[in-house]
Amino acid sequence: MGQKGTETRDRLLDATQELLETGGYFGAGLNQVIASSGAPRGSLYFHFPGGKDQMVGASIRRAGQAISDSLHGLAESSGSAAEFAEGVLNQLGDRLEQSGWRKGCPVATVALETAATNDPLQQACSEVYASWEGEVRARLADHPDADDLAVTTLALIEGALLLARAHRSRDPLTRVARQVRALLS
Amino acid sequence: MGQKGTETRDRLLDATQELLETGGYFGAGLNQVIASSGAPRGSLYFHFPGGKDQMVGASIRRAGQAISDSLHGLAESSGSAAEFAEGVLNQLGDRLEQSGWRKGCPVATVALETAATNDPLQQACSEVYASWEGEVRARLADHPDADDLAVTTLALIEGALLLARAHRSRDPLTRVARQVRALLS
Repeated sequence: MGQKGTETRDRLLDATQELLETGGYFGAGLNQVIASSGAPRGSLYFHFPGGKDQMVGASIRRAGQAISDSLHGLAESSGSAAEFAEGVLNQLGDRLEQSGWRKGCPVATVALETAATNDPLQQACSEVYASWEGEVRARLADHPDADDLAVTTLALIEGALLLARAHRSRDPLTRVARQVRALLS
Repeated sequence: MGQKGTETRDRLLDATQELLETGGYFGAGLNQVIASSGAPRGSLYFHFPGGKDQMVGASIRRAGQAISDSLHGLAESSGSAAEFAEGVLNQLGDRLEQSGWRKGCPVATVALETAATNDPLQQACSEVYASWEGEVRARLADHPDADDLAVTTLALIEGALLLARAHRSRDPLTRVARQVRALLS
């Protein structure tokens, strides 16, 4: 694929992800993706011959990889697992507040909407969560309950993001960040 | 409202809630609500003259109240805050598994879909979460960090339910239930 093709594909995925984060799977119509990306209609089926679900799956995986990279960076710069978790909660809180409560977990809405009814997208979301859990797990390497604590830490982060979006307030993230140390030390 | 009116209203709300939990706000079309409730179309506008958002708001609040009642009952029968949280995670895990991974948190999908774009429904979801937090807070009455721990416990429960749905597995709920004691004792 040439540079122009890559750019068009990225524009389609940017528009898809923006719509997914604001209104979920059912809020991301193909016409809206085309309108807000400015990409020609034909390019959508050129890049994603499988249609909407292929494009949504690619968008979820790309957003998941960006968060994985960011978790990896935070893990390397944190002195302890608790400091890492606090850093994640603070970074995600900044992103959420700066986006006007639009950008929480980039995967959660689609995960909930498709969990029971759309096998390929359920699989894509499950893989993204497993990869994030792996990043958290790596930071807990020598803890005797590392497997349990990795999923517990991820659940805390996801739940705090959900409550922060629901209340349109950073408060849940701030309070959880204060308590995560008790869990991880 | 007579008994028949109340029954029709309940049937409409049952169908709405079922569709909301499976496919979210955008997956709950009025035509589907009418088809799966078997209620006459006119009854929808009779009971909910404000249309879809009024009906979805009523459905969310009713489902929220059912969970509040259940939290209240578990709080009364639990010997400690940790036992209470474990009981909640187990009960929600049973519900989720028995429903074929459809019934997680009855509010979360709509909360995420509408948080940034629909003020009345954002408000309804926020109120439901605040009432659940109040039930958890009441169980932690004498703990010095009760306010922080109430939102942290609720975040853990919501996050674990989200991951369990995403993976179609009880495993996240089981693991979190094992770790919640460290947080609450």
